[in-house]
Amino acid sequence: MAGTVEKKLAELGIALPTPASPVANYIPFVRVGALLFVSGQICLDAGGKLVAKGKLGNGVSLEDGQKAARACAVNVLAQVKAALGDLDKIKQVVRLGGFINSDPGFLDGPKVMNGASDLMVAALGDKGRHARTTVGVAVLPGDAAVEVEGIFEVG
Amino acid sequence: MAGTVEKKLAELGIALPTPASPVANYIPFVRVGALLFVSGQICLDAGGKLVAKGKLGNGVSLEDGQKAARACAVNVLAQVKAALGDLDKIKQVVRLGGFINSDPGFLDGPKVMNGASDLMVAALGDKGRHARTTVGVAVLPGDAAVEVEGIFEVG
Amino acid sequence: MAGTVEKKLAELGIALPTPASPVANYIPFVRVGALLFVSGQICLDAGGKLVAKGKLGNGVSLEDGQKAARACAVNVLAQVKAALGDLDKIKQVVRLGGFINSDPGFLDGPKVMNGASDLMVAALGDKGRHARTTVGVAVLPGDAAVEVEGIFEVG
Repeated sequence: MAGTVEKKLAELGIALPTPASPVANYIPFVRVGALLFVSGQICLDAGGKLVAKGKLGNGVSLEDGQKAARACAVNVLAQVKAALGDLDKIKQVVRLGGFINSDPGFLDGPKVMNGASDLMVAALGDKGRHARTTVGVAVLPGDAAVEVEGIFEVG
Repeated sequence: MAGTVEKKLAELGIALPTPASPVANYIPFVRVGALLFVSGQICLDAGGKLVAKGKLGNGVSLEDGQKAARACAVNVLAQVKAALGDLDKIKQVVRLGGFINSDPGFLDGPKVMNGASDLMVAALGDKGRHARTTVGVAVLPGDAAVEVEGIFEVG
Repeated sequence: MAGTVEKKLAELGIALPTPASPVANYIPFVRVGALLFVSGQICLDAGGKLVAKGKLGNGVSLEDGQKAARACAVNVLAQVKAALGDLDKIKQVVRLGGFINSDPGFLDGPKVMNGASDLMVAALGDKGRHARTTVGVAVLPGDAAVEVEGIFEVG
């Protein structure tokens, strides 16, 4: 039975994917008290294919970067769902870390990362507003265009 | 009425700027219990102009990078002031994350980041000492030379 | 008197080094309640020499990168030991942040970072499993191949 946040996601046309399982000695999330730490999620779609591959400013368009950031945010929420069972237990998105696979001359990382931030607010309203750090990195795992990690306050 | 930390900043010749407002669905800070998470702040001066633009190791000097890091730290404190009303409510600077816009051959990121760390200790004394991670990134928003994020323990 | 975690490390042939002292106004760790934040540690060996220097994908092999990541993890644990006196007080490794000094075409950051993750689980068992974010950065302090930071839940 889907909670109100998942119903909102469904209205947005988003079904939470089966969350990616790490293939190593790390895990997708760790909870400590009221804080849930979610591992960095790359921009895989529900089929496990990268939404955008390569660098912003060198082959990946701003629009595709935004779609990639949105996909990362969906994957972060899929891990939160796996952790909590119900996204309605999110009290606040505390912080998102956004890593943009960037050509050294690409200056619009924040516009890319808005794809993730906007999804959080669309799904969660004011509970989706978060602190954020966006940086342009040299490369990401598997040449993903975007990676997003999250910290959540949970009830 | 300025608290003792702001008086110390004034002695250092620093007036807190009006903190930058995000232009998107994220916010400058989120508090969870005793922890305050502050979004990444780039090296804008009080007039909203970048203190240093471009890459360390390719156009931006070490000295200008340090000034940029100091400006980031001032902007982080401006957000803490907006969050708490009074910087004297800071119990400890817990962690600073320093991102240096770097040419791939620039090895002195920590010296740049000292501009931020030194400002925190100048303003806050032992409460200003913090854990820190400094990395050299491919590029930063708007080609800012430095970006700094913070976590604070607050009373 | 070594605790069980240090005995396990000894079985693995690992003696904790004297932890590196920051040479600036930051400190190796800060504790807030149950959370211990450890500063980013580069891949120094017990003698203070880099285990691997330079970029993955351009001179540093995957195998050497993994050794470097493992050395970073050992250095993180050395800081935890300095903070707590006894590694047995670790309740959970909460999050590792892995920064890989990468050529822009190097896609295997997670395989490098497994060197750190595997060490945590070898030393701590299930308490060593953690959330993780791995990114490829333009450069690291002193041209270290890998830098790792950590957050721990402590008793």
